[in-house]
Amino acid sequence: MLSTDHGTIETPIFMPVGTQGTVKAVQQRELREIGAQIILANTYHLALRPGSELLSEAGGLHRFMNWDRPILTDSGGYQVFSLSELRKIEHDGVTFQSHIDGSYHRFTPERVIDIQRAIGSDIMMILDECPPADCGYEYAERSNQLTLRWAEQAREYVARTAPHYGHAQYAFGIVQGNVFEDLRARSAEGLVALDFDGYAIGGLAVGEAAEVMYRITEFTTSVLPAGKPRYLMGVGTPVNIVESIERGVDMFDCVMPTRNGRNAMVFTSDGPLMIKKERFLHEYRPIEDGCDCYACAHFTRAYISNLFRTREILGLQLASIHNLAFYLRLTRDARNAIFQDRFSSWKDAFVRRYHEGQST
Amino acid sequence: MLSTDHGTIETPIFMPVGTQGTVKAVQQRELREIGAQIILANTYHLALRPGSELLSEAGGLHRFMNWDRPILTDSGGYQVFSLSELRKIEHDGVTFQSHIDGSYHRFTPERVIDIQRAIGSDIMMILDECPPADCGYEYAERSNQLTLRWAEQAREYVARTAPHYGHAQYAFGIVQGNVFEDLRARSAEGLVALDFDGYAIGGLAVGEAAEVMYRITEFTTSVLPAGKPRYLMGVGTPVNIVESIERGVDMFDCVMPTRNGRNAMVFTSDGPLMIKKERFLHEYRPIEDGCDCYACAHFTRAYISNLFRTREILGLQLASIHNLAFYLRLTRDARNAIFQDRFSSWKDAFVRRYHEGQST
Repeated sequence: MLSTDHGTIETPIFMPVGTQGTVKAVQQRELREIGAQIILANTYHLALRPGSELLSEAGGLHRFMNWDRPILTDSGGYQVFSLSELRKIEHDGVTFQSHIDGSYHRFTPERVIDIQRAIGSDIMMILDECPPADCGYEYAERSNQLTLRWAEQAREYVARTAPHYGHAQYAFGIVQGNVFEDLRARSAEGLVALDFDGYAIGGLAVGEAAEVMYRITEFTTSVLPAGKPRYLMGVGTPVNIVESIERGVDMFDCVMPTRNGRNAMVFTSDGPLMIKKERFLHEYRPIEDGCDCYACAHFTRAYISNLFRTREILGLQLASIHNLAFYLRLTRDARNAIFQDRFSSWKDAFVRRYHEGQST
Repeated sequence: MLSTDHGTIETPIFMPVGTQGTVKAVQQRELREIGAQIILANTYHLALRPGSELLSEAGGLHRFMNWDRPILTDSGGYQVFSLSELRKIEHDGVTFQSHIDGSYHRFTPERVIDIQRAIGSDIMMILDECPPADCGYEYAERSNQLTLRWAEQAREYVARTAPHYGHAQYAFGIVQGNVFEDLRARSAEGLVALDFDGYAIGGLAVGEAAEVMYRITEFTTSVLPAGKPRYLMGVGTPVNIVESIERGVDMFDCVMPTRNGRNAMVFTSDGPLMIKKERFLHEYRPIEDGCDCYACAHFTRAYISNLFRTREILGLQLASIHNLAFYLRLTRDARNAIFQDRFSSWKDAFVRRYHEGQST
């Protein structure tokens, strides 16, 4: 559980991704309807459009997008390293070109906090460097040192500055260190010494094998304090999520439910369905029996399949709503199972059914 | 007022366009929310996808799309003549190629009724030929005769066949005759002799000047029975609609609120706004003050402008919801003004304000 001035977050929790101040194809009232407790937005994208000045003028992102529950903002570190055209990393920050218009921008640990102060997110992430999955030990070690130095600067800057809108803003550190346990340990220890409000595990789900991701996740949570939230960034499939909850993770975000939804993949307890396939045109039942989301309560697989086959926007909406409802139910079920001390058997049953359904 | 087995329609009324069994970017519950009393779907599109067999299997379009208020289906005549690749008009029907996959299809007056029986629309439209706006008198006259002959066949076929799903289905004739009053009169008289349940005015809003459209509309309504609904197909701008209500029209459909909405044009009583423009990023008020639609009750012009600038689907949704709410309010206000015997002054005030706002 994590208390913010915009409400309490029960963990483990999945955070729908609203990169640009909107969860793609889903309305704010629909996020409430499916029980979203916190959403994620992105500092990199919001800094470019509409920009932090406009967000200040609007009174912060909560007011701008009319969302009164918690918001976490990713620092944009990952986007600078994955989206921008050209980037130059210096000891005190990174200069990059916008992926939209090629304009030059500069992120420093302090600047990224300034932007997040203007956004007014309940949880701010510090700037980190995200090296590629296969960067090797030497690069990972150097990058780790840089990220740790930036974390120090960010921590200090957070302490020196105040929120703009009256509500408190937490700051989370991001553990890096690639797939190397000694680097992960060094990164985690360095951040813990700075006493952040929570800790994210970054640099995973970037192409490494699932087993490696699970091993590094388990190792990293083991060296992080149990009393603070642990957030595995950008993960993942339903199975990834339950496996990572077992390994001590409290918070997740991933574009998969919305992005895959827009590409006609819908999640069910029996595995995902490519709903656009012709055979679904004849299935007059919901995507998932018993699901209470708007899509499942009102529409058949046949109708939704036809919406995708005819490229109608309502298809994107219904698949996105259902997939987010599925992910939120997944973490809610995990939470209940933990409280009832039956997580392990619940997880095994979920994973078995999910995989068996997929193979049929 | 028009009673159907799916509810009563208060006229004058605007019908949101749900060509393929969905109003683009708007959910069924949102159509109810903004007071949509009837929607329009299209026989041509539904015949191609998902096809009338599948619609029969699903129990008709109401069940397929989960919409329990009235549905009117256009016959597809207009689409055959505007969308399909290749068409050959014969005395007993038209053969055309699908705009989707080039497959060959044939529409006859009877076949189009069969499809609409499978759809189960509350109001079926008969097959007509839609000649181009500038076809000239001779072509218009020949076409008129063909459409009238098809209308006779259709009328007879409607009488010989029964609805599939237990609810009644009306049949409307379509007056053609281009911009020639004598042809319009002949077409209307021919159809009235066949005693349809209502009469549409087709072949307008296809490129002719607004004044010509108004003149032909006024002339045509004057030769149609006052006791039956009169429907002006595919019209139009807010001003077109109030001018046509003054000229005796009861029913309208147009893609403008949804299509223009998806292109970032939003309607207000002071004229339309191109909401994507940069200046709207600083306007922290709704699209239209006093509008109770979801978009206006919850979001600012600034936010919606940014949604379009960042190409987010929520922008399409909010603009479409608002524009339909605007059109439905427009016809509701017209209805109230008619009941209160002040239509003319209401209309003048509406048109003046709409035009004055546009020029600022």
